[in-house]
Amino acid sequence: MTSDGCTPPSLARCLPRPNRPGGDVGKDFRVSKDLRLSDEQRLDWLRLIRSDNVGPRTFRDLINRYGGAHAALAALPALARRGGASGPAQIFPREDAERELAAAKARGVAFIALGEPDYPQRLQMIDDPPPLLSVRGKLSALARPLVAIVGSRNASAAGLKFAERIARDLGAAGFGIVSGLARGIDAAAHRGSLASGTIAVLAGGHDRIYPAEHADLLESILADGAALSEMPIGWEPRARDFPRRNRLISGLSAGVIIIEAARRSGSLITARLAGEQGREVFAVPGSPLDPRAEGTNGLLKQGATLVTEAADVIAVLEPILGRTLDLPAQEPDLVPRLDGEPGEDQRSRIVSLLGPTPVAIDDLVRLSQTSAAIVRMVLLELEIAGRLERHGGGLVSLI
Amino acid sequence: MTSDGCTPPSLARCLPRPNRPGGDVGKDFRVSKDLRLSDEQRLDWLRLIRSDNVGPRTFRDLINRYGGAHAALAALPALARRGGASGPAQIFPREDAERELAAAKARGVAFIALGEPDYPQRLQMIDDPPPLLSVRGKLSALARPLVAIVGSRNASAAGLKFAERIARDLGAAGFGIVSGLARGIDAAAHRGSLASGTIAVLAGGHDRIYPAEHADLLESILADGAALSEMPIGWEPRARDFPRRNRLISGLSAGVIIIEAARRSGSLITARLAGEQGREVFAVPGSPLDPRAEGTNGLLKQGATLVTEAADVIAVLEPILGRTLDLPAQEPDLVPRLDGEPGEDQRSRIVSLLGPTPVAIDDLVRLSQTSAAIVRMVLLELEIAGRLERHGGGLVSLI
Repeated sequence: MTSDGCTPPSLARCLPRPNRPGGDVGKDFRVSKDLRLSDEQRLDWLRLIRSDNVGPRTFRDLINRYGGAHAALAALPALARRGGASGPAQIFPREDAERELAAAKARGVAFIALGEPDYPQRLQMIDDPPPLLSVRGKLSALARPLVAIVGSRNASAAGLKFAERIARDLGAAGFGIVSGLARGIDAAAHRGSLASGTIAVLAGGHDRIYPAEHADLLESILADGAALSEMPIGWEPRARDFPRRNRLISGLSAGVIIIEAARRSGSLITARLAGEQGREVFAVPGSPLDPRAEGTNGLLKQGATLVTEAADVIAVLEPILGRTLDLPAQEPDLVPRLDGEPGEDQRSRIVSLLGPTPVAIDDLVRLSQTSAAIVRMVLLELEIAGRLERHGGGLVSLI
Repeated sequence: MTSDGCTPPSLARCLPRPNRPGGDVGKDFRVSKDLRLSDEQRLDWLRLIRSDNVGPRTFRDLINRYGGAHAALAALPALARRGGASGPAQIFPREDAERELAAAKARGVAFIALGEPDYPQRLQMIDDPPPLLSVRGKLSALARPLVAIVGSRNASAAGLKFAERIARDLGAAGFGIVSGLARGIDAAAHRGSLASGTIAVLAGGHDRIYPAEHADLLESILADGAALSEMPIGWEPRARDFPRRNRLISGLSAGVIIIEAARRSGSLITARLAGEQGREVFAVPGSPLDPRAEGTNGLLKQGATLVTEAADVIAVLEPILGRTLDLPAQEPDLVPRLDGEPGEDQRSRIVSLLGPTPVAIDDLVRLSQTSAAIVRMVLLELEIAGRLERHGGGLVSLI
């Protein structure tokens, strides 16, 4: 089960718990500073994360369970069967993975694995970090303290001016600026920080730039900054990929600045994710009569820090950045977790407790009178079988 | 010494301590609900407060010391002499006071004394309430819960629109709206609340409306609201009368809303006074690129409550308004305070400790090795003599 010798193999230790404000986020890290996947390991990681029903959280659970991606891939068919999948497990073919790696290389895209030294430090600390990040541009841009700037696509002239100004000022103060390459505020933030280094996080593949008219802007960004994606080369971004992408914008950053956001806009999703990830949320005030300020004024009412200049952001983030993230260099623990296999009666008892209404995993453990390890395993099977949906707050439901 | 039988004579009890947030502000009140000054007493009060070097605080000290305005007036010449005045005490002549009362009556202006039932309840609680308020219009307008709305004279169209809207909405919710009759935000706030009752606080006399072009607006205000002043009929407002007036705007109100204020504007003075008086401070956000929002955004950074609609104000003030101010109805205590008279050596010792640099009254007591009562008396003499300046925080200096 440890045949792929994948490092960092014990993601139970390597992967952090969800970052909570004030929590000792570094406690569970066991990351060697010189960790590097072999080419073969990277291929297995890519196959595993590209396989059906495997997202970042399931990837972590599988690696924790089987000690490495190779062993996890081998286990997928049985897991899907036991979870009651309608057909065989859809495992990402080796050839497709090889083709993706070759295509990435041809475009100057590097894959960085979670736990490798170039992997952005803060992003490791979120609940669901991508196992593999594909990066174009300067990797060094990811090593700075990062601040995200996001906001309306349909921004006012004043909003655009302000975004460009604060991005330039924060860049000059040593921050890298993260944004989403969208029209409006995002583009202005990137433009203001081209010289100091800015990072565009893409919702699609590196060859599917959205919006297309920002292809030139992206090229300018790559000179001193970088573009990031967790999606495959060739992936056309869909609407639901943008909120998913937004968790990376906030996750990379120590804080997120929202400039002009209407009610129920994507920027507010980023703000919410930032809060959940324990990131500082900053908002720029605006007139109560300007609909573009409704979202930001609302954030301020909820306790976001009011920003009118770069100094407001620096004052809050400087002490946070001074804190070390406490990642001790240490050899990884190669032993997979040897949870018991669920028996058929345990599995059916747990499945019978599930339905379309989300229930707490804790309740499942209690009501099924089995162990947390057994429940976790059955949920993993169901997930691989495409039958489980995970909600926030440890809630799950059947699809 | 109690010859004028002035009620409320013992202002040591009748007058409140400075209101501090969370403090038990009602504790020192001994105000009969049916208290009324006689015509003769009102004349003495007017003479005393209009005499040279007698402001609201000195008025209180004198009444506390001598038990009433009549006795205090009689004591002024000796006090001024002992304080080292350059000439005789300038006591406001009885005929002038009679003339002012007659002129006020002719214009429909009523004088309300501190402690009388019509005196605005919250205003009693500030550190330096005017002993006599002159009022035109509907006294009933002063009995509601009041909220002040102030801001730029040079306001934007959006700011004016917002001021009128929130004044109307708060008026509809049962609040009286207090403002300063200035151009811009003030006028818009009055206009928005004409129907529900609005109060203009004047920096000059009732016959010296500033700006003159708002004479018609004032007439409209008086239909269902009121105009207030502590200055004499005929008083032309000078620059320094406006900050003095601003303490009444905040002092009357449970909270103060600042709409559009540049840095170092008069509205920010009102906000500061409101904070010192323990009033809630509300500010309306604006774009960081709009100089008219610099002051309000700055207040928000300092912890003012962000307001985009009337509900934000109501949510904060409702619980405060529910609290009773705890003014027990009780007969006033007529006994004047019989502090010892300072001896010549004590006086000269205290005076020698004073200079142009402000010193703490507590330090004077300690360094002079006399009692607090003796120090207070010497300071009163110096004040009546026009030689003492009082600063914030219990500091005094010689002029």
